[in-house]
Amino acid sequence: MDDHTRVLSIQSHVCSGYVGNRAATFPLQLLGYDVDVINTVQFSNHSGYGRLKGTRTDADQLANILHGLEENGLLRPGRLLTGYVPGAAALMVVAELARKLRDRNPELIYLLDPVMGDDNKIYVAPECIPIYKDLLDCATIITPNWFEAELLTGVKLESESTLREALRILHTLHGVPHVVISTVLPTPELAASLPAHVLAPQTNGLPEHSPYLGDVQLVVSSSVLPEDERKDGKVSTVHVGSVKQIKGYFSGVGDLFSALVLAHFPGRSDPPPPAPDTPLSRATARAVASVQGIIVSTHHYVQTLPEEERPETDQELDGQDGERRVRRMRARELRLIQGREYILNPDERGKMGGRMVPWTDFWEL
Amino acid sequence: MDDHTRVLSIQSHVCSGYVGNRAATFPLQLLGYDVDVINTVQFSNHSGYGRLKGTRTDADQLANILHGLEENGLLRPGRLLTGYVPGAAALMVVAELARKLRDRNPELIYLLDPVMGDDNKIYVAPECIPIYKDLLDCATIITPNWFEAELLTGVKLESESTLREALRILHTLHGVPHVVISTVLPTPELAASLPAHVLAPQTNGLPEHSPYLGDVQLVVSSSVLPEDERKDGKVSTVHVGSVKQIKGYFSGVGDLFSALVLAHFPGRSDPPPPAPDTPLSRATARAVASVQGIIVSTHHYVQTLPEEERPETDQELDGQDGERRVRRMRARELRLIQGREYILNPDERGKMGGRMVPWTDFWEL
Repeated sequence: MDDHTRVLSIQSHVCSGYVGNRAATFPLQLLGYDVDVINTVQFSNHSGYGRLKGTRTDADQLANILHGLEENGLLRPGRLLTGYVPGAAALMVVAELARKLRDRNPELIYLLDPVMGDDNKIYVAPECIPIYKDLLDCATIITPNWFEAELLTGVKLESESTLREALRILHTLHGVPHVVISTVLPTPELAASLPAHVLAPQTNGLPEHSPYLGDVQLVVSSSVLPEDERKDGKVSTVHVGSVKQIKGYFSGVGDLFSALVLAHFPGRSDPPPPAPDTPLSRATARAVASVQGIIVSTHHYVQTLPEEERPETDQELDGQDGERRVRRMRARELRLIQGREYILNPDERGKMGGRMVPWTDFWEL
Repeated sequence: MDDHTRVLSIQSHVCSGYVGNRAATFPLQLLGYDVDVINTVQFSNHSGYGRLKGTRTDADQLANILHGLEENGLLRPGRLLTGYVPGAAALMVVAELARKLRDRNPELIYLLDPVMGDDNKIYVAPECIPIYKDLLDCATIITPNWFEAELLTGVKLESESTLREALRILHTLHGVPHVVISTVLPTPELAASLPAHVLAPQTNGLPEHSPYLGDVQLVVSSSVLPEDERKDGKVSTVHVGSVKQIKGYFSGVGDLFSALVLAHFPGRSDPPPPAPDTPLSRATARAVASVQGIIVSTHHYVQTLPEEERPETDQELDGQDGERRVRRMRARELRLIQGREYILNPDERGKMGGRMVPWTDFWEL
């Protein structure tokens, strides 16, 4: 009696602000999911502030809570979402749970967000990397950023051919049916091989040439579908979209994104999207549109604050003045609650930049 | 720079099901509040199941988290909500926080739900009772059930005169401006003195004489308004409503109710409701309507389950078979997520029974 609208989400909890379970739970609930929430930490705030207080849920405590749920018949989710888990011992407990739920229910939709690092920096214990690799064959969907995709595959993502190699490893070697890679930088080589219009100007609801528009990043979705003919070398159906980046860093964006991909990924009884979309490309488009809407509205909110409350990202000035960094973090907490409309009605073909374009010749050499 | 749409909620967390912060947070978020969430426990499920696993946040850990929030300028809520806190030491930390926030911001709206017991049973440490009494002068609104109102005042609530005595103690001795007493039983003596129509048949959306309609309970709201003329013996403006009870027990109802009273209580800049409503009577009416809608839809859901999944409340049979109790608890978890519409659009004058009738002669002897 698994419940297809029930998600079990295992991530961190911050009392104030929106990362981890605090970024994932409310959007999933708003979209109609019962969310069972296991918190791997309880911290006052996210680590970006530079200082925080709180406690971790250790491996034994985690196993104990799972035991309590199991004893009461409460471990029957239709969907599983795992994100940042501090430490290899706790991650092992999560991995064991994922295997158990997978064995118990082959239809389980497990979104594994292999949170390991970003921007060439690893922020988990190195022992976590092999645990994540081992766990890949259990996942339905994974949502690494480009750096995590590199860590998982050992392939440097800088061209179409290396992207192809990485996706082949994830789909074929590790058996992951659905992969979304986010924050891929369009190197000149990669940009040259993209389908037409992917990099066409997108204003994301902002005036074009707006001073606060940053770089463009790519998001790639790749699904192994029954109709994909492996004998011609085609491994999967690939879509790609571009997202214009708002300057500066917003915490919790990845956690919000993975929750929304899971929320919009259809169950077995839901109708598939019309071609050329795949279930994953549509879920990705919707997630991108919602996330982008919330980032843009957070950015607009920041602009309304007094100047001293919204310092720009500047590591050097932050180093001289810890309060400066704290003020920026406070100002830039995602406007998740005020952005309910972006979650309920993602404009996946619209100005917020959630279009996913079929990359039809991706596997053609 | 306090944030009037920011609530700090300090209650328990259960991984599965809806009590404490799990009953309070989502409704407040759905109604537009940023909610900072401090969890006083992390348990697998609520105690009604008869077995649970998890950890408590002890007094030191609680103080530590508050310190982290304070350090980062994150302790500036416009509203404070406190519910079940296990143990006197942790409750002392909460009380100290409430005093600090009150001193810092005289406009703080503090809803204190003095969770101590129900149905003549106390389920906190006895040392908690004097701490709650001491804390009353800090509260803007309190939402005791009838048993907790008796514990706080020492008055047995069984007639209009004893209710008057209890409200006088809470308003005058303890200085609480707004009091809601829920689950008051209409004894024959009390029923005889109610305003007309309070006990008139209300169907709550169910067929009248429906076999699963239980007893009627009363909810009383009482606000000290500037225009209340104390010299004539009038202490406050009182409203009363009746709620038909659905058979059996649903956990988390009180926590959901208090969160909704806080959510609907207007801030200083919000327009007051038209007479004869008071801000509190309208907030109470809306909260009752939403809660009743969710209870009724949970009840309807339970009826759709296979018979063995929904045993009736029966302590004796539960004693013989622990699984029986667990099955009932699972089936009767509040349908909070599915009941979003009841939260967004409470039908406070409608069939769900949220009408609050002015009790105009309440203070006349």
